[in-house]
Amino acid sequence: MKGTMRAVIKPTAAPGAALAKDWPIPQVGPKDLLVKVKAAAICGTDSHIYDWTPYAQSRVKPPTPIGHEFSGEVVEVGALVENIKVGDMVAGETHIPCGKCLLCTTGQPHICQNMLILGIHTPGVFAEYALLPEVCAWKLPKGYDPEIGALLEPMGVGVHGALLGPLHAANVAVIGAGPIGALAAATAAACGAKKVLVSDLEDVRLEMAKSMGATHVYNARRDDFVAEVMKETGGVGADVVLEITGAPVAMEQALKVARKAARVTFIGLPSKPVVFNDFSNDLIYKELKVSGVTGREMYNTWYQVSALIDSGKVNPKQVITHRFPLEDYDAAFIAARDRVGGKVVFLPEA
Amino acid sequence: MKGTMRAVIKPTAAPGAALAKDWPIPQVGPKDLLVKVKAAAICGTDSHIYDWTPYAQSRVKPPTPIGHEFSGEVVEVGALVENIKVGDMVAGETHIPCGKCLLCTTGQPHICQNMLILGIHTPGVFAEYALLPEVCAWKLPKGYDPEIGALLEPMGVGVHGALLGPLHAANVAVIGAGPIGALAAATAAACGAKKVLVSDLEDVRLEMAKSMGATHVYNARRDDFVAEVMKETGGVGADVVLEITGAPVAMEQALKVARKAARVTFIGLPSKPVVFNDFSNDLIYKELKVSGVTGREMYNTWYQVSALIDSGKVNPKQVITHRFPLEDYDAAFIAARDRVGGKVVFLPEA
Amino acid sequence: MKGTMRAVIKPTAAPGAALAKDWPIPQVGPKDLLVKVKAAAICGTDSHIYDWTPYAQSRVKPPTPIGHEFSGEVVEVGALVENIKVGDMVAGETHIPCGKCLLCTTGQPHICQNMLILGIHTPGVFAEYALLPEVCAWKLPKGYDPEIGALLEPMGVGVHGALLGPLHAANVAVIGAGPIGALAAATAAACGAKKVLVSDLEDVRLEMAKSMGATHVYNARRDDFVAEVMKETGGVGADVVLEITGAPVAMEQALKVARKAARVTFIGLPSKPVVFNDFSNDLIYKELKVSGVTGREMYNTWYQVSALIDSGKVNPKQVITHRFPLEDYDAAFIAARDRVGGKVVFLPEA
Amino acid sequence: MKGTMRAVIKPTAAPGAALAKDWPIPQVGPKDLLVKVKAAAICGTDSHIYDWTPYAQSRVKPPTPIGHEFSGEVVEVGALVENIKVGDMVAGETHIPCGKCLLCTTGQPHICQNMLILGIHTPGVFAEYALLPEVCAWKLPKGYDPEIGALLEPMGVGVHGALLGPLHAANVAVIGAGPIGALAAATAAACGAKKVLVSDLEDVRLEMAKSMGATHVYNARRDDFVAEVMKETGGVGADVVLEITGAPVAMEQALKVARKAARVTFIGLPSKPVVFNDFSNDLIYKELKVSGVTGREMYNTWYQVSALIDSGKVNPKQVITHRFPLEDYDAAFIAARDRVGGKVVFLPEA
Repeated sequence: MKGTMRAVIKPTAAPGAALAKDWPIPQVGPKDLLVKVKAAAICGTDSHIYDWTPYAQSRVKPPTPIGHEFSGEVVEVGALVENIKVGDMVAGETHIPCGKCLLCTTGQPHICQNMLILGIHTPGVFAEYALLPEVCAWKLPKGYDPEIGALLEPMGVGVHGALLGPLHAANVAVIGAGPIGALAAATAAACGAKKVLVSDLEDVRLEMAKSMGATHVYNARRDDFVAEVMKETGGVGADVVLEITGAPVAMEQALKVARKAARVTFIGLPSKPVVFNDFSNDLIYKELKVSGVTGREMYNTWYQVSALIDSGKVNPKQVITHRFPLEDYDAAFIAARDRVGGKVVFLPEA
Repeated sequence: MKGTMRAVIKPTAAPGAALAKDWPIPQVGPKDLLVKVKAAAICGTDSHIYDWTPYAQSRVKPPTPIGHEFSGEVVEVGALVENIKVGDMVAGETHIPCGKCLLCTTGQPHICQNMLILGIHTPGVFAEYALLPEVCAWKLPKGYDPEIGALLEPMGVGVHGALLGPLHAANVAVIGAGPIGALAAATAAACGAKKVLVSDLEDVRLEMAKSMGATHVYNARRDDFVAEVMKETGGVGADVVLEITGAPVAMEQALKVARKAARVTFIGLPSKPVVFNDFSNDLIYKELKVSGVTGREMYNTWYQVSALIDSGKVNPKQVITHRFPLEDYDAAFIAARDRVGGKVVFLPEA
Repeated sequence: MKGTMRAVIKPTAAPGAALAKDWPIPQVGPKDLLVKVKAAAICGTDSHIYDWTPYAQSRVKPPTPIGHEFSGEVVEVGALVENIKVGDMVAGETHIPCGKCLLCTTGQPHICQNMLILGIHTPGVFAEYALLPEVCAWKLPKGYDPEIGALLEPMGVGVHGALLGPLHAANVAVIGAGPIGALAAATAAACGAKKVLVSDLEDVRLEMAKSMGATHVYNARRDDFVAEVMKETGGVGADVVLEITGAPVAMEQALKVARKAARVTFIGLPSKPVVFNDFSNDLIYKELKVSGVTGREMYNTWYQVSALIDSGKVNPKQVITHRFPLEDYDAAFIAARDRVGGKVVFLPEA
Repeated sequence: MKGTMRAVIKPTAAPGAALAKDWPIPQVGPKDLLVKVKAAAICGTDSHIYDWTPYAQSRVKPPTPIGHEFSGEVVEVGALVENIKVGDMVAGETHIPCGKCLLCTTGQPHICQNMLILGIHTPGVFAEYALLPEVCAWKLPKGYDPEIGALLEPMGVGVHGALLGPLHAANVAVIGAGPIGALAAATAAACGAKKVLVSDLEDVRLEMAKSMGATHVYNARRDDFVAEVMKETGGVGADVVLEITGAPVAMEQALKVARKAARVTFIGLPSKPVVFNDFSNDLIYKELKVSGVTGREMYNTWYQVSALIDSGKVNPKQVITHRFPLEDYDAAFIAARDRVGGKVVFLPEA
């Protein structure tokens, strides 16, 4: 499609963003879709880009549109697109696999050796139109709520981590109650967890987690989470631990709160060195099963997320606290950076 | 303890039962408990014994008390008992492992090579007092409902089968809606199943399953279960199949209703040859993962059952449809044999 | 490529085959490769086609070239081929996945819902040239032995079945010592099996299995395999059972020879109803873990097969007993049908 | 048994050891065995005790005999011992489980919540006689080599770690080539590993590993292990990593050498804080599966160790480099402390 569009862009290598009113609409390659964006959500990565942290500086080349979590309607398809047609509603998987490496050819494209990232290596989606490789399109049913569509990707991160193993009959500790933590807690509650014990620094987030299924919440400013979990589990520790913060001190706590032979899944991404002061006692003697997860299994996680939503077990809209038109991008990024809020969504058609 | 007690016994090698009013109270060995029975439930095996089927004839030596599912209060302990004391409430695991074989020494005593069975190789529990090896005692919290205590063992069979693998986000087909099937369906619903599709021959059982969490129920006299499951799963088939009937025709259906790579767990025990007419298409080309389960993992399943009940996710009392004093043993066995009813419970103190 | 070629074809709907001297070279589609065939092996399916069994009648539409196991050199590539170029050596995966179904989109394309089969739905490979979809090409190192290349596909079936779970420290029973059984036995021996106990009806096959790593071999015409395995395993049974024959009597034996909690993997395809006379005792009370396997995981199995060969742990050429030019197709099919022989290979350039 | 015996003891809270010539023979409790020690091996823990490190100071109460790895002949059994009789040869499991905790009652007694340790909480075995709880006795066949018997326990640590998952067709990196590392490498080679890549600081240990099955060895003083493994694995990394040193720098290297989705098993016990400088890239984005292992699964690992030895796949005697009578305890501890040597064995009857 020819023409220009409104887009929230990173204009220069400095903090902040801008609204481009005449940004060129991206041109579809043979295997691409052009999608009219209906809803798009701000991710922690986008805040890094807005704030222009070292993480962002090493990855993003301004000027470029920002954003990657989104859903919308397909308005154009490349010549070799096979399974999607104009008029389809889609959500975007944001990891673009190469299709050729060891991981891609053994069923694990979500950890492709040569991964590209939507909105980093391709134009971002906080815009009227977005480019999406067909391999990254998750087709939505007709009439699907676009806001839920935009949340499938971030919810997928929490579900991927939570459902890395069974949760049934388990005491599940969740460290971090932002949108992904709250959705992970909701997933645990929906999938048979005995107790869902959630820790965060902000009461408002803990309230959100509680309304979504957490059975016990703790404010780490006031409560001794390890001691509380031990008390609630008869001195044994949690069967499953989900770490969503990426804060090194919380990551060490994730080991301490785990019972022997527990599963500990790291989802939050630390940007600093992680120190385990008592690795022998905290991990080895306990025979913990520790994994990292990233992104979403393509497309196992998407099926799981859809099953949880379609069956009414988890309602991801509960984590949305703010909605903005593209024009209010500064307000949106400020709301997103504020750790107290939940998910912030752009509605480009508003 | 010296003395006699009332006990429902198999008096002779013929159909029927009898109430012995002066049966000797069993004498505890050094590792045994004597338990005052508070509640005891009739199992399919007990119906076999009452009806004196070939299965029963090959196993039971009259005269002997009948029954094995029960809970009660410990009134005497053997000299070498270490972890249970008089006054404790216990439920009875009914598989008595040898502790020495390959399976016992690798964490799988529930499939011990030299298994003895409570109420078959030891006196039965439809009586005022029951003998229980300490290794088979599951300690209950003070004030635990004795009826729930008596249901832990049969519920364990369904939970063992259901939780052999994850159920989260899965379409789960359950064939058979007797007490164990209904509890398996309830477990699936509680542990994140997307749809729980239950088949049985009796509407009253299907209603019970529906009230406990089944999302779709089918009467196999009227409905084509395979076709219905295919319709509800977009032509793919169920992700997990739990077969509880042991009827050969249902067992073949269990394969047909499964999607490729599905888990199929056989819980119901066939007494006739099982014929798979199209094993290549129904199992091999589909790469099914088929397992049998028996009894309860000792004691992993017991922890799981307790977690589901204690967290309020499954209420096993919903399957109890009849309660009787020991004296009404004939009425009790008739109610139990009637496939329409749920669980039948003896209350020896009534 | 224009022109004609020599090809072994099924000329009409009747037993037998023919050599077409001027069969049209297949024309590449945009995602296809044209491969100059260096070596091709006869599979059991090909014997069905030669003999024109009901299995073949329902699948094959004469006239068409036969065969699917092969390797060769790429001489032409379609317009959209991305990863393979002219001059590359390739072996052919024979399952053509759709790429779109639930199984394909969750990492299991080898059990695609809409599978096509090379040599059934596409032209066969007992010819000078063969068509291969790029998605089915396994690239071989320069100078790779073409005969080994042609054996990767059938060896993959045995390896897929054998390595469905660990074999280390296990007593492994293998029923059937044809080429796939012998390669499965060799894989077990190479991957840490304690004892590899192989059964077949033909001594010559048992000798082949023994030379490839079987530690104990039994001729089912003379020996009581179940009793022998019990004797060698201290009365416990085999930890892992691989069934390669598809004979219903052997399939029932596969359950009986398994210890409690054993893995039983069915690889051989029965064409008749399979009867388990004592399913309760043979499978449920033993809590067997039974799976079917078909084809090869794409491409996990191919990596595994290559690792076993490249590290010198398994030499698949040991199963080749006959080599023929295309012209000797009748002799080749007779040798293949003869259950005494091993693998029969066509060398089209000979 | 009444009387006294020779025993290597920790006489006082200070470095060194002593030979007590008249130490009282330990008295069997009702569930204990008294074992005439035939062979006993020095473990790293014993070196800690000899050197009187903080680790030892916090655990050991002098005066007491030292040592825990051993085999011997049963000369007396307690009143309640059921499965072992005088004259039996046994090896000693050194973890004494409580039998009652969550872990013990779910098949994982080797990580018992209330674990006692042989030779720490009970008298040590570098003596003429040793006490062994029956639950810790592994019965050996008649005529079993006592030196191999004494090695089953330490070999079990390596086998437990190595066989935590499959090794077949895998590139396996082993960090540390002391006795446990060498046995882990030998296990990998015996169980189907493609390449076994071993790193250590001492050439003599690397030679030992190579003679036992390592395919590639690297001296970390000279070689860049991460770079070498990347080279040998086509830039992908190792499929399985076994870390045996407990050195923090090596533990970070264990993550770096692993491919995406690899298994990393930590066996070596760090005594200092472990720092992962780039946890996000080294573990989370790679979705590593990290576990700690301790001791041996009771008794799954013992069956595995026996299978590997009995089938001739691994010969643990290759790691023995020194043998001493009890009297030469100082020479023995010096040889053991010397990181260049292999296993040091006491022969109390010598």
